[in-house]
Amino acid sequence: MKTETTIQGLAASLQPARAARKTIGFVPTMGNLHEGHLTLVREAKKICDVVVVSIFVNPIQFGPNEDFDSYPRTLDQDSQLLAEVGCDIIFAPSVEQMYGSKPRLTNISVSEITADLCGLQRPGHFDGVAVVVTKLFNMVQPNYAFFGEKDYQQLAVIRQFVRDLNIPLEVIGVPIVRAADGLALSSRNGYLSAEQRQIAPTIYQSLKAAAQALQQGETLSQVLANIKATLTAAGFVVDYVEARTTELQKIEAFSEDLVLFVAAKLGNTRLIDNLQVKHSA
Amino acid sequence: MKTETTIQGLAASLQPARAARKTIGFVPTMGNLHEGHLTLVREAKKICDVVVVSIFVNPIQFGPNEDFDSYPRTLDQDSQLLAEVGCDIIFAPSVEQMYGSKPRLTNISVSEITADLCGLQRPGHFDGVAVVVTKLFNMVQPNYAFFGEKDYQQLAVIRQFVRDLNIPLEVIGVPIVRAADGLALSSRNGYLSAEQRQIAPTIYQSLKAAAQALQQGETLSQVLANIKATLTAAGFVVDYVEARTTELQKIEAFSEDLVLFVAAKLGNTRLIDNLQVKHSA
Repeated sequence: MKTETTIQGLAASLQPARAARKTIGFVPTMGNLHEGHLTLVREAKKICDVVVVSIFVNPIQFGPNEDFDSYPRTLDQDSQLLAEVGCDIIFAPSVEQMYGSKPRLTNISVSEITADLCGLQRPGHFDGVAVVVTKLFNMVQPNYAFFGEKDYQQLAVIRQFVRDLNIPLEVIGVPIVRAADGLALSSRNGYLSAEQRQIAPTIYQSLKAAAQALQQGETLSQVLANIKATLTAAGFVVDYVEARTTELQKIEAFSEDLVLFVAAKLGNTRLIDNLQVKHSA
Repeated sequence: MKTETTIQGLAASLQPARAARKTIGFVPTMGNLHEGHLTLVREAKKICDVVVVSIFVNPIQFGPNEDFDSYPRTLDQDSQLLAEVGCDIIFAPSVEQMYGSKPRLTNISVSEITADLCGLQRPGHFDGVAVVVTKLFNMVQPNYAFFGEKDYQQLAVIRQFVRDLNIPLEVIGVPIVRAADGLALSSRNGYLSAEQRQIAPTIYQSLKAAAQALQQGETLSQVLANIKATLTAAGFVVDYVEARTTELQKIEAFSEDLVLFVAAKLGNTRLIDNLQVKHSA
């Protein structure tokens, strides 16, 4: 496994694979890797000859009051984990390497599907994601790129701009990896106190209960209200509880496959989760 | 020479060149080709194994009161000219092929350098250029892309987003090709009446006179005022007469290399031109 910190070094490391027309898989991350990320790498290894994992805490996707400075940087530990799952190249650039010294004037924005859910509380967040992911795609030029369904809205945004801009790669979404008690794995789980960590699985429990209630004929609005009540009672400050179609369109009733979305804070830590609910026609 | 009208057909036609790792050159056009475009193709042939020319009148870069519907479409004539200069592949997609049937939600915008000159009178124009050029870049995946310096601001915008987004190609600017009387070649020259065509070279004459006056010590503001007066007297309605650094920054005096920019209307036809003026330090 090689670790590259410059765009030029990355290009040099990828050159033999490109010349041999090998299949390149790409897993963009912000580091502080957990089993969710490692699952992405394992999925990439299954269908790609060479797997690149980027580790870059992207400043332009954090809002002014978000956790950019405190976001955990754990490169040594991440490298060890990536070596174990067969990553071929780590790309870990500095902010200077990614954004250069001249001002960036270009922005990429995706409308409509960024307007609510996490987009509402995090203005500019998905623009920052779109810009950095596009830059990374252009550096790595992978055949396949892997993203977790945990950040479902992010995955939808990436699918959208890849299609709209004809970026020549296939985006692959990978199901959420959960702890034994159901909590969706996230780097931000590390911010939780022992007590908060006990409460956190309530999100998944309430989503599961909601899916079951929907299947049993409870109305969508009642089900969403129940999730909110459960979380509030457990000590969360709920940001949103919403249902959308799998393509993030608004939906009023359980009339087709849908996705339930939750964002809620425990103390200062904002957790998100989602659950797809199949509709049997 | 092959002509492809679908993204899939283009990919298939380019596949052998890509497999053999040949150098691909790309010249995006809106068709109605003249000697200016053909010069771009000749420049591309000099350094590339395979040259692709796209012909696509891009609806999203035209404003609501602009000439999208009346813009000349002359594919047969264009194909003949391109065959003569050694173009390998023409890519002439439909609007449906380029933009698909689902709504496009993604936009690319470049700030600052699009705020004035042609950007002021054509809101959204450069966004439309950035989106279509990015899409074409992703379809063709060229090593080099060629653009005329006639659309100097457009060239600067393309250089900017290529750098900001790390698009893996080199942008090459090619000097303006002019008629014998100095008029910069443009598809829109075909809109001019015989009388207007006689007047049109006044733009270049006034730019040349301005460059000479600058070299002789005349002030920049006086020189710009003179261009405007000359054009107005000749029957133009002047949109702008401006000076900028070669990187499109504002400039108050002739203290470094600069570019003089003109946009002016003769009847309904909007003509643009520019002239680079070297400063001897």
